[in-house]
Amino acid sequence: MRRPIGIFDSGLGGLTVVRAIRRRLPAESVVYFGDTARVPYGIKSRQTVTQFAVEDCEFLCRHDPKFIVVACNTASAAALPALRSRFSRPMYGVIEPGARAAAAGWNGRPIGIIGTEATVASGAYRKAIERLLPTAQLVEKACPLLVPLVEEGRSAGDPIVRAVLAEYLEPLREAGVGSVVLGCTHYPLLKQGIAEVFGPGVALIDSAEVVAEEVAAELARADLLAPDGAGGVRCFVSDHPQRFREVGARFLGEPIDSVTLVSAEVFFGDSEAPVVGSGCDDP
Amino acid sequence: MRRPIGIFDSGLGGLTVVRAIRRRLPAESVVYFGDTARVPYGIKSRQTVTQFAVEDCEFLCRHDPKFIVVACNTASAAALPALRSRFSRPMYGVIEPGARAAAAGWNGRPIGIIGTEATVASGAYRKAIERLLPTAQLVEKACPLLVPLVEEGRSAGDPIVRAVLAEYLEPLREAGVGSVVLGCTHYPLLKQGIAEVFGPGVALIDSAEVVAEEVAAELARADLLAPDGAGGVRCFVSDHPQRFREVGARFLGEPIDSVTLVSAEVFFGDSEAPVVGSGCDDP
Repeated sequence: MRRPIGIFDSGLGGLTVVRAIRRRLPAESVVYFGDTARVPYGIKSRQTVTQFAVEDCEFLCRHDPKFIVVACNTASAAALPALRSRFSRPMYGVIEPGARAAAAGWNGRPIGIIGTEATVASGAYRKAIERLLPTAQLVEKACPLLVPLVEEGRSAGDPIVRAVLAEYLEPLREAGVGSVVLGCTHYPLLKQGIAEVFGPGVALIDSAEVVAEEVAAELARADLLAPDGAGGVRCFVSDHPQRFREVGARFLGEPIDSVTLVSAEVFFGDSEAPVVGSGCDDP
Repeated sequence: MRRPIGIFDSGLGGLTVVRAIRRRLPAESVVYFGDTARVPYGIKSRQTVTQFAVEDCEFLCRHDPKFIVVACNTASAAALPALRSRFSRPMYGVIEPGARAAAAGWNGRPIGIIGTEATVASGAYRKAIERLLPTAQLVEKACPLLVPLVEEGRSAGDPIVRAVLAEYLEPLREAGVGSVVLGCTHYPLLKQGIAEVFGPGVALIDSAEVVAEEVAAELARADLLAPDGAGGVRCFVSDHPQRFREVGARFLGEPIDSVTLVSAEVFFGDSEAPVVGSGCDDP
């Protein structure tokens, strides 16, 4: 079964999901699209994010993926129902797996949720966790500076990152959270700094790892696993392939070999796109 | 002469230019477009920024502006020649006026230039100042966090803003700059904090004020000044009108009365747009 897994994000962040899937399923081929011309999604409206996500999926469908992973918390929160009703192939988001992991590990203490402005405003994590744990106390906090801090190349030890984390996470620390959902695919790169704010005994939930487990189980169940062998990652971006290659390697945890710039004509057109596989059954 | 002045930016920042023009030319009508669906431009490639800027101008042309102000340093740096060759109506950027002001006030000490990643990478300010002052020493520094800090509502007194400014501006301070070009329309909102890093005796050059002066002179020269009376500002955005209205008032320095969301169909179409005036002579 040589069809790829399709994964998209507003930019680089989704590469942390690719990394987890690569580690869990090294034989799979991945086609990744990063919408770097319109990044970030986290400050934009549900309507706009949905429109962008539909276009991103239409592009991925030209590669005939087995299914699509929405590796962007903002797009998962805003657009997943719309994507599922529009596209026939299976569609995974990162919110529900993260919520399931938070519920599974619950120890009775409040659960913290951090994410972009749009993700937190959507209440998607809150609603998903409340369905599973109606009595749990939830503490949500939008952390808009973390994405630009990570994208600038700063890491957890940077004094400005420390100051920003201390400020953002204070209400969660005060509430005595027992776990924190990292509700943005950029945040795993700051895991160590976030852990230091809370000290030991607070679990950090990284949706990427949960998604990789669930994807592996689903592929096995549907008998869609790739045969043994080395898989790979092909990346497509709507802007700045060089920057994506350079900054993205930190997210992917390995060098990025293949990045192709998708021009607007190809992205919005339908005749000249690089097509792999048997085409797309979706609109 | 009731035709408006057309002004655009990637988002909110250009409202500092509108503010300066309103103060200098209160009788003028302004039509402003903020491309909030695709903001920011400062981390994107020249090609992508140029494409967006052309689309922004095409939208403004439907309002038949007397001329267009590119109130975005990134778009001025990347796209002004392309815009001037594509559109017949007069087109003002913010880079050349800022460079002229820096040259006019030069005291022999090095000149600092701060801006977004894309503006600094373009070298547009450096080249424009070097043409006027071939012997001046220039110190450039990209400051990518300042836009998200301002957009989050933080002001110059915020401890994180202070820490970020101290870090970014250190090489300029060390070089003993005599003036600093604020090469991004967001930065005037942090003027006080920037001034504190340098102490007295360092001039901060805000292109907005220079642009307003040059626009006033040009309108008078071409006999295009609006008759006496109260002008106004009508704003159009590609996303999130409510957020634009709330955050934008700090940039404009007055409440924003009129914000219209422009849908993708209207933005890219040509039949249903709100049109004022006699239409557009441009492609």
